[in-house]
Amino acid sequence: MRELRETALAVKKASAVLALLDTEKKNKALFAIADALTDHTEEILSENALDVAAGRENGMSDSLLDRLALSESRIEGMAEGVRQLAALPDPIGETVEEFTRPNGLRIRKVRVPLGVIGMIYEARPNVTVDTAAIAFKTGNGILLRGSANALRSNMALAKVMRDALRAEGIPEDVIAVVEDTAHKSVDELVRMNDCVDVLIPRGGAGLIRRVMETASVPVLETGVGNCHIFVDESAKYDMAERIVVNAKTQRPSVCNAMETLLVHSVWATGNLAKLLAKLHTLGVTVHGDKTVQDMDPLAIPAVDEDWDKEYLAPELAVKVVDNLDAAMAHIAAHGTKHTEVILTEDAENAAFFLRGVDAAAVYHNASSRFTDGFEFGFGAEMGISTQKLHARGPLGLREMTSYKYIVLGSGQIRG
Amino acid sequence: MRELRETALAVKKASAVLALLDTEKKNKALFAIADALTDHTEEILSENALDVAAGRENGMSDSLLDRLALSESRIEGMAEGVRQLAALPDPIGETVEEFTRPNGLRIRKVRVPLGVIGMIYEARPNVTVDTAAIAFKTGNGILLRGSANALRSNMALAKVMRDALRAEGIPEDVIAVVEDTAHKSVDELVRMNDCVDVLIPRGGAGLIRRVMETASVPVLETGVGNCHIFVDESAKYDMAERIVVNAKTQRPSVCNAMETLLVHSVWATGNLAKLLAKLHTLGVTVHGDKTVQDMDPLAIPAVDEDWDKEYLAPELAVKVVDNLDAAMAHIAAHGTKHTEVILTEDAENAAFFLRGVDAAAVYHNASSRFTDGFEFGFGAEMGISTQKLHARGPLGLREMTSYKYIVLGSGQIRG
Repeated sequence: MRELRETALAVKKASAVLALLDTEKKNKALFAIADALTDHTEEILSENALDVAAGRENGMSDSLLDRLALSESRIEGMAEGVRQLAALPDPIGETVEEFTRPNGLRIRKVRVPLGVIGMIYEARPNVTVDTAAIAFKTGNGILLRGSANALRSNMALAKVMRDALRAEGIPEDVIAVVEDTAHKSVDELVRMNDCVDVLIPRGGAGLIRRVMETASVPVLETGVGNCHIFVDESAKYDMAERIVVNAKTQRPSVCNAMETLLVHSVWATGNLAKLLAKLHTLGVTVHGDKTVQDMDPLAIPAVDEDWDKEYLAPELAVKVVDNLDAAMAHIAAHGTKHTEVILTEDAENAAFFLRGVDAAAVYHNASSRFTDGFEFGFGAEMGISTQKLHARGPLGLREMTSYKYIVLGSGQIRG
Repeated sequence: MRELRETALAVKKASAVLALLDTEKKNKALFAIADALTDHTEEILSENALDVAAGRENGMSDSLLDRLALSESRIEGMAEGVRQLAALPDPIGETVEEFTRPNGLRIRKVRVPLGVIGMIYEARPNVTVDTAAIAFKTGNGILLRGSANALRSNMALAKVMRDALRAEGIPEDVIAVVEDTAHKSVDELVRMNDCVDVLIPRGGAGLIRRVMETASVPVLETGVGNCHIFVDESAKYDMAERIVVNAKTQRPSVCNAMETLLVHSVWATGNLAKLLAKLHTLGVTVHGDKTVQDMDPLAIPAVDEDWDKEYLAPELAVKVVDNLDAAMAHIAAHGTKHTEVILTEDAENAAFFLRGVDAAAVYHNASSRFTDGFEFGFGAEMGISTQKLHARGPLGLREMTSYKYIVLGSGQIRG
């Protein structure tokens, strides 16, 4: 087993070479990686089968096993994702801004890679390929610290990618798996400021909190979404039902699913019973406040914790509020600054909500489920940021870059 | 004394109001603050005199006392700085980007405040006014944690600003001084993730390292600059002398001053002795490698630590290197990614250096001293970032902002 520090130093060294590669060479290598994934499907599947068998033996849940298990089509999906990345524009080297100072200095602000990304994530092995490919395209080295349960799969995927890079004459250490999956390897990784430029934790709330609390390396916080939809007095019933159903049931396990529904009291009177009945037919459990309980015999009384809970399941907290201000106050108190939605036909209320609510993405008359790199047209994403520093919302290619100022002089000195 | 947590919660609450103020109202308040500083010069000076007297009693050095002491003209300078800020464009609300997705969703990326900035700094009271005014202009609340030595001065300055805001009908708690100057108040502040969105430590290397190592709140690392100038084979002597002298002697105590001079061996043969003699006449102490010692009888032998030292004084490490690659390798090993300079008449070497050196600012044929918010034309700065996340180099108004995505729909749901 390669020691973490040795691995990190190797990635740092290799990333300096990668940072200067031109777009054409990077894209060629991405195609080579994609082909290699397809060509080595069998080896990858046989290593993955060992992880799955061990997981089953250790009592891993069916849903986790499903996330862990690869198949020919899942591997082909990864390869296709890598090919799509190759086709996206390369942000590195882009001039963001350019200006000349009165003293004649010409200053150019140019996008550069971040350096080395430390990716800390849970079971799904597809994250290994997705994030390695995004990092590669943006000239960043990546240290992949997945979970012990997926180590064989991650090592197999990384080996295929590394072999493909070596064949292209690129230092394979730009992509490296942290082989030590003891908990303390995370603690060491998050304080390795001399080797790692940014950490991206992706997984459950506990993992993310732990990284935030122990890291000295800058962190891009991702993921926790206690997202609200507020149905205003003037919302149209049909649109509200369509959007609420979509936001709660289309894929309840993800961070941009709705977790709390806030309803204007006037709208609730005529419409809420019908809406909740519809949600019940779709298998949604409702935790409601007093007013909701009066309207919906199936509603479970909501307790304080419900307003802060990310169910990630067909479960929903529902509250009736007196007005827009009350809805916004509830969101300010309980939201996680991920995605917040207002459904209304009143343009003034919409504008007030969109301006006043503090979140990465605020919506008028659309489902919360669109906060996503692909849906935003970024082509790929590393995760969804819920912090304010550096990047908010979907983390695409550009969000994996920093910049530097290139200053061109002709002998200027400071007076 | 108000407890830190109580103060922080008050700033958080007030900052939500400030975030929505329009530019005109913010600028009017900035002018009111500037006038109030002038009007209350006497009270500020009498509180500052108490800090200075206490500092003298406690054996504070003359240079620190000089940084601590205010005067009528220094206060007028602060007021003038605040007026200049009012005149600068307000980045808040600016649409950075706007696009429409195939499903008709209109997505607008808009600049918003960061929220609450935690400023942790050392003696100089002018930082209190400068940073509070920048934070205010960008819609951010600010928690000012200065040093115990300057508490009376900081409290007096904050009182004047807060009174001026209250008179303008703006919640005064957008600007607040942390009254508890025990060390543990810093430890508490840097882990107050529910109230503080970003920390900016400004001061010595020890302070910055301590914040980086203990914070769970995101940090904008500032300041440490081990800046190099590389004099290439083709550099013109006159330009090299002018720039080297400026970068080392114009203001040696600041982070963008040169700390190590790297010289191409061919250039060194004809020119280095003369250049070092010039530096000696200006009182600069030279720590040189073997070649330098042979050329300069006054040179002190450089030890390993010299290549990593930020002298912040009229002292300089000097090394002769064989070529551009050796210079860049030295910078990669010892630089702090702040400011790096090449002096050369060879366009190819310049381009190679500017692309390959990883630093916030890289220069061709100009002094390192220009890495500064005012010199870059930003009008004001909170400090100079040496990290890669969020912002690099001078931290001006725009760097004190985040963004949010405003998504306008017409009933879209995800398929």
